[in-house]
Amino acid sequence: MQIQLPDLSTTRRAIRAGLTSAHEEMDRAIGASASDSCRNAFLKTFEESARTQSRDSSLANSCLAGLAVSVKDLFDVQGQVTTAGSIVLSDAAPARQDCPAVARLKSAGGVLIGRTNMSEFAFSGVGTNPHYGTPANAAATDVPRIPGGSSSGAAVSVATGSAFIGLGSDTGGSIRIPAALNGIVGFKSTARLVPTGGAIPLSTTLDTVCALTRSVSDAIIAHQVLAARRVNRSNAPMSTYRLAVARSLMQDGLDSTVAAAFQRSLDRLRAAGVVIEDIDLPELNELATLQATGGFSAAESYAWHRTLLKNHADQYDPRVALRIQRGASMAASDYIELTHARADWFTRVNVQLQRFDAVLSPTVPIVAPPIAQVAPGAERDEAFFKVNGQLLRNTNVVNMFDGCAISIPCHNPDESPVGLMIWHGALRDDAILNMALQAERMLQK
Amino acid sequence: MQIQLPDLSTTRRAIRAGLTSAHEEMDRAIGASASDSCRNAFLKTFEESARTQSRDSSLANSCLAGLAVSVKDLFDVQGQVTTAGSIVLSDAAPARQDCPAVARLKSAGGVLIGRTNMSEFAFSGVGTNPHYGTPANAAATDVPRIPGGSSSGAAVSVATGSAFIGLGSDTGGSIRIPAALNGIVGFKSTARLVPTGGAIPLSTTLDTVCALTRSVSDAIIAHQVLAARRVNRSNAPMSTYRLAVARSLMQDGLDSTVAAAFQRSLDRLRAAGVVIEDIDLPELNELATLQATGGFSAAESYAWHRTLLKNHADQYDPRVALRIQRGASMAASDYIELTHARADWFTRVNVQLQRFDAVLSPTVPIVAPPIAQVAPGAERDEAFFKVNGQLLRNTNVVNMFDGCAISIPCHNPDESPVGLMIWHGALRDDAILNMALQAERMLQK
Repeated sequence: MQIQLPDLSTTRRAIRAGLTSAHEEMDRAIGASASDSCRNAFLKTFEESARTQSRDSSLANSCLAGLAVSVKDLFDVQGQVTTAGSIVLSDAAPARQDCPAVARLKSAGGVLIGRTNMSEFAFSGVGTNPHYGTPANAAATDVPRIPGGSSSGAAVSVATGSAFIGLGSDTGGSIRIPAALNGIVGFKSTARLVPTGGAIPLSTTLDTVCALTRSVSDAIIAHQVLAARRVNRSNAPMSTYRLAVARSLMQDGLDSTVAAAFQRSLDRLRAAGVVIEDIDLPELNELATLQATGGFSAAESYAWHRTLLKNHADQYDPRVALRIQRGASMAASDYIELTHARADWFTRVNVQLQRFDAVLSPTVPIVAPPIAQVAPGAERDEAFFKVNGQLLRNTNVVNMFDGCAISIPCHNPDESPVGLMIWHGALRDDAILNMALQAERMLQK
Repeated sequence: MQIQLPDLSTTRRAIRAGLTSAHEEMDRAIGASASDSCRNAFLKTFEESARTQSRDSSLANSCLAGLAVSVKDLFDVQGQVTTAGSIVLSDAAPARQDCPAVARLKSAGGVLIGRTNMSEFAFSGVGTNPHYGTPANAAATDVPRIPGGSSSGAAVSVATGSAFIGLGSDTGGSIRIPAALNGIVGFKSTARLVPTGGAIPLSTTLDTVCALTRSVSDAIIAHQVLAARRVNRSNAPMSTYRLAVARSLMQDGLDSTVAAAFQRSLDRLRAAGVVIEDIDLPELNELATLQATGGFSAAESYAWHRTLLKNHADQYDPRVALRIQRGASMAASDYIELTHARADWFTRVNVQLQRFDAVLSPTVPIVAPPIAQVAPGAERDEAFFKVNGQLLRNTNVVNMFDGCAISIPCHNPDESPVGLMIWHGALRDDAILNMALQAERMLQK
């Protein structure tokens, strides 16, 4: 299933042309948020305030035109408790102010429709949540399938039409995985471009604040608002870029749907004149060893959670507690060596990729499995961790590379969603977005 | 004793005026390096090549005019083994290239006269070395006194006239402590301004590459060469600056010589019209607790040393091995919390200091004690660690503050050397240097 709902760019034009209005659109979004397809996607909705604000005519010419924006439960919204999909923070004090990302969305004319569900504390790319239930994948029509995570509700809110922008975060793939699995667009910008203040950290080294959207054009709008910068648009044709496909790691163990969609995408791009070179990138296979002592997330999240975990371990999702607890045993020297090893790895990968404008990979190697296979429950832990490892494998490369990446849909209308990831290193954001705009058109032909 | 030897600035002018020549000056420097006052200060000298190079007339108009520069044994010099004052690295491979700091000194016309002794691996502010002997303080006339460290030989080389610039490093005070104790000038720039490549790290977070000189004017020259930047000179009179004296921590336990010299310096500056305000800065007292788990140096040096230490612990100075070993037990989460606690501390100190142009403190609270009190030997370990803690206490504040600081002599000619430290936060280097130029003149009246 392809997403057929109009995107923010189209809707904004329609509002300005008088063909629709922000409050009509808000009614539609609220309707979607209350529908069965959004079950478990929101932890809280703000129907009344959203309706009121969408009637504020002063927003009509704003960047986000008074349209619906959803906020992952990771981010501070003034006056509300940020629970990060947990129950352990239910009694925490309400946030004293909006975090910068929320403040920027609001001041650009975005209207908050609700706070979205997520993997507890943003751990895992699967998107299951034992406390608030697991939102079902918006594209699956046979059985309930996982939405991907950790920005699970954010993706479902955007895919179902209850928000135009789903504010989320990406530490190892948390924006791109649910984008790929729900058939929408997820852009992980270079981490430093958007302030991370007022968000509960998973990894202070890798956390990126970014968003899910229904089109690349919307991804550009969302990024410009979140990063408070202009994207340098370029009309250079796709054939002037030089692209690479990494043979190593990222094409291992693709399921048949992903393998076919990825190959077809390369064929289509090549047919449209795009130069794509197959390269070895054996450095990617080093990442597993590099992160064997737990990686950045384990130690950095343990530093944040340790008191909470000591006193309330029983209230955590056991799968999350297990992963945070791994950070307890990491030595400072291992952590320091990890930072050095990453810098060295980074430099070597950079040398390999310097002559390319971007790399293409499948965002995730598999289509969304049924929730029943990985739902909370110790008897399914093994399956859960296996799927989690598969989902994070490709996307995590870009976080470790301190890079930027976009996942765009590349499946046919009758297929399960598959994401094509276009990525490169730090601060290549504008080039990636410009390429993705063209690739999106070529793949939708 | 005040340093009476001409500085680089004066000598450079004299060379250009034909009053002396680089090779005459080099002969003098080599003479000093071979004299008894330089015993243990150099691990190696390059008399022949230094003499030859100083005769190269093309250097006469260069920034450093073919004059003698010493290099702490921490830094790579192409073709030589960098031992960092240890014996454990004696069999290491020779450096394949000059480190950036050495390369910059050379290309500015500096001539390497030798490699200077240091506290093993730059640990300790005392300057003792059990492998190569301890250089004696250049200013002490009664008994052999400690030179201060870790840039012990660097300071002695500059104070005795065997080098105009002593290249060194400062992680907790390693430039400023020996500057204060030998009665010369030590400028610790903001860490990020000079590349640290090709130097054996102590703390990758705090290490600063910088230099000892005989005057503030020379400190500016050396900094401009090492940082490859111009210092913004200002003629604003000292009375237009607003200075603070921190009552907390930095004036605790001063010995009578330091207390008197510091008070007299404040009086002289005030008499010259300088506005100096006494302030509380209770945040400084938090540093001991903040660093109780070992601080950055323990964990970061352990990460570098662990294999070497496992195989060759018996070849280390036991006092150094003990301190590195502390890093083994530090947890990654403690290290991460240290970085966050430092950032928080930093922000609060910054708020307190924002309305000032600089802070004045004694560089170290004591004058140099006799070597006999702290010389290698387990029976003197307690005394050693006590003195080391005293020496590092004030200077370390600036490293934790990611700041810049200069130590200038503030004692009378008949007194043991005492340093006045002028300091502030990151990238205030030029203002600090401009103030120090004036303070130096006021204090030498």
